[in-house]
Amino acid sequence: MSDARRYVELDGPFPMYRGGSLPAVTVAYETWGEPRGRGANALLLFTGMSPSAHAASSRDDASPGWWEYMIGPGKPIDTERFFVICINSLGSCFGSTGPASTNPATGRAYALGFPKLSVEDIAAAAHRVCLALGVERVHTVAGASLGGMVALAYAMMYPGTYRDLVSISGALMATPFAIALRTIQRDMIRADSAWAKGDYAPDAGPVEGMRVARELGVLTYRSPDEWLQRFDRERVAADADASNRPFETTFQVQSYLDVNAIRFAQRFDANCYLYLSQAMDLFDAAEHGAGSLEAAVGRIDARRALVAGVSSDWLFPAWQQRQVADLLRQAGVEVTFRELESLQGHDAFLTDTDRFAPMMAAFFSGAPGPG
Amino acid sequence: MSDARRYVELDGPFPMYRGGSLPAVTVAYETWGEPRGRGANALLLFTGMSPSAHAASSRDDASPGWWEYMIGPGKPIDTERFFVICINSLGSCFGSTGPASTNPATGRAYALGFPKLSVEDIAAAAHRVCLALGVERVHTVAGASLGGMVALAYAMMYPGTYRDLVSISGALMATPFAIALRTIQRDMIRADSAWAKGDYAPDAGPVEGMRVARELGVLTYRSPDEWLQRFDRERVAADADASNRPFETTFQVQSYLDVNAIRFAQRFDANCYLYLSQAMDLFDAAEHGAGSLEAAVGRIDARRALVAGVSSDWLFPAWQQRQVADLLRQAGVEVTFRELESLQGHDAFLTDTDRFAPMMAAFFSGAPGPG
Repeated sequence: MSDARRYVELDGPFPMYRGGSLPAVTVAYETWGEPRGRGANALLLFTGMSPSAHAASSRDDASPGWWEYMIGPGKPIDTERFFVICINSLGSCFGSTGPASTNPATGRAYALGFPKLSVEDIAAAAHRVCLALGVERVHTVAGASLGGMVALAYAMMYPGTYRDLVSISGALMATPFAIALRTIQRDMIRADSAWAKGDYAPDAGPVEGMRVARELGVLTYRSPDEWLQRFDRERVAADADASNRPFETTFQVQSYLDVNAIRFAQRFDANCYLYLSQAMDLFDAAEHGAGSLEAAVGRIDARRALVAGVSSDWLFPAWQQRQVADLLRQAGVEVTFRELESLQGHDAFLTDTDRFAPMMAAFFSGAPGPG
Repeated sequence: MSDARRYVELDGPFPMYRGGSLPAVTVAYETWGEPRGRGANALLLFTGMSPSAHAASSRDDASPGWWEYMIGPGKPIDTERFFVICINSLGSCFGSTGPASTNPATGRAYALGFPKLSVEDIAAAAHRVCLALGVERVHTVAGASLGGMVALAYAMMYPGTYRDLVSISGALMATPFAIALRTIQRDMIRADSAWAKGDYAPDAGPVEGMRVARELGVLTYRSPDEWLQRFDRERVAADADASNRPFETTFQVQSYLDVNAIRFAQRFDANCYLYLSQAMDLFDAAEHGAGSLEAAVGRIDARRALVAGVSSDWLFPAWQQRQVADLLRQAGVEVTFRELESLQGHDAFLTDTDRFAPMMAAFFSGAPGPG
């Protein structure tokens, strides 16, 4: 476990957005930089579906984080200016309470006894962390992918508690296509007999189901054109054709999928995956405006917002980024909107440094020095 | 079993394109219309991955076929002019020899003892059917999806045995993205313990694995924009949120996937699916030109060709259709190329009657009356 990881314990019951509650909640987080002026220089950061709160390396944990190029001294999110707080989502399995955590009422994992999880619950838990840290109003609330959804929900739920907003490859709701994709991933996990309706031992989970679900995840996070350039039809060294055995690995792209997926399946809890996945499907910002998206986004009182996405993303497509930007403008927010021509699909914010780093640096350099 | 289905028995050994052979081969087919002039009015039709040879209804089998709107008296493929022969692919499970067929050497299903299947084997078996029917030179060889690949392979393998060529949403090779998608589908089936390394009883196959693989298939055959228009975020009648049970069906798009996939999983053999799926990955037309696509397509001596695809297809993308058209033109073929602005993705040829029927009718009406 990371030495940089910190925890906030929230007294229960913690009410869940779609019903039910948790008797107590732990939220794991990491921070970079120093707080100033009761957190007036704080940047609250939400993650995608699968990362931990370890967004970047630090003195306490030198291992690279999931947004290493973005966060640090002199980097686009400059930790000499900002006090960055990254949250491990409620429902995840890297220190925060989730379906893999022990239910104090039974002494066993919550598993499917965990109440239905929503994007709003992740936002609410993070808000409580800010209050526990003495941060009443952050400078910026930010996130990408699921984290973009959470940042938008946070901004609707807690007006007055932030100044600026960053939503990258997020969305105000899941499209039917994204819902279908995630439904198939969940079906893969549930079809694995080791899943056992969620009641598996910690070391005997549905690794095969998780592996295949992650393969599909990896596929949907990138773009067809990127893979054409990167792999084309290049074959693996030991060509399976020689053996004439069926269904062996023949192409580089198959090997890439496989390696990535096995690594993931071994470290992520299946029930947590199912809950977080469904939370994304269920998110519908219009719920915060009595059915009206305009009214919902109208609740956001950010001064400035950066809304960005990439043209090759088909999970959180470009039109959904434009929708966020347009509605924020209607709400009177000063919006910087960027549709980046990246080949790298939904995951571009993690890998396309050349496009994302300058964009973020420009947005924050335009900001008055916090604190 | 269909009363319209006919069979040709081919004496073995039938040599397979990538090695090995079959001791004997049965090929199932259906026909419509009457042959004239030793088959000079024949249209040889190849199917996508999963259909049988039942492309259209007839007096012997009144049930609708997979291309019902396209084939029949007065329809775009007019059976008053054409003698249509539709082939059930070698390797499939609707009457033709495949992994589910009995291996005469063992008295049990071939299963993984079936030799590696290639697009070229499907073409070769069909060519033998034509010869058995006394058809030495067909008027047109045609196919869509996998059938488009087979039609192209046929045209490269058997110059001089056809006059015109129709390739719809086909390709000269699989892209890495399509390979990845199909690899994931195969992994889903193989991850089902009921698959038992291919050695399952006919009534105890990996139905769960097939169901999920088909869900992904259905997803990839359509387009995100179509589903947005068709389903949006419409919920199913009995809203699962009321029960607060996790992972129930909430959205119409989930229900659509589910119904379609269960139907398919119950009627298609898993090993046949695996073999046909891999055959598409392995197809590389350049093999017919000593590594050169230009040389390979240069072998095609069609007089006219129709090459068509749709803009929203990401399995056999539009650029692959343009590639076929460009190379055929270089080879001296008179090419009609259409990139249709259909929302319906790869499967548009099955469902987008308004765009496909007039295009096919126009192509064939331009043709001199066959026979």
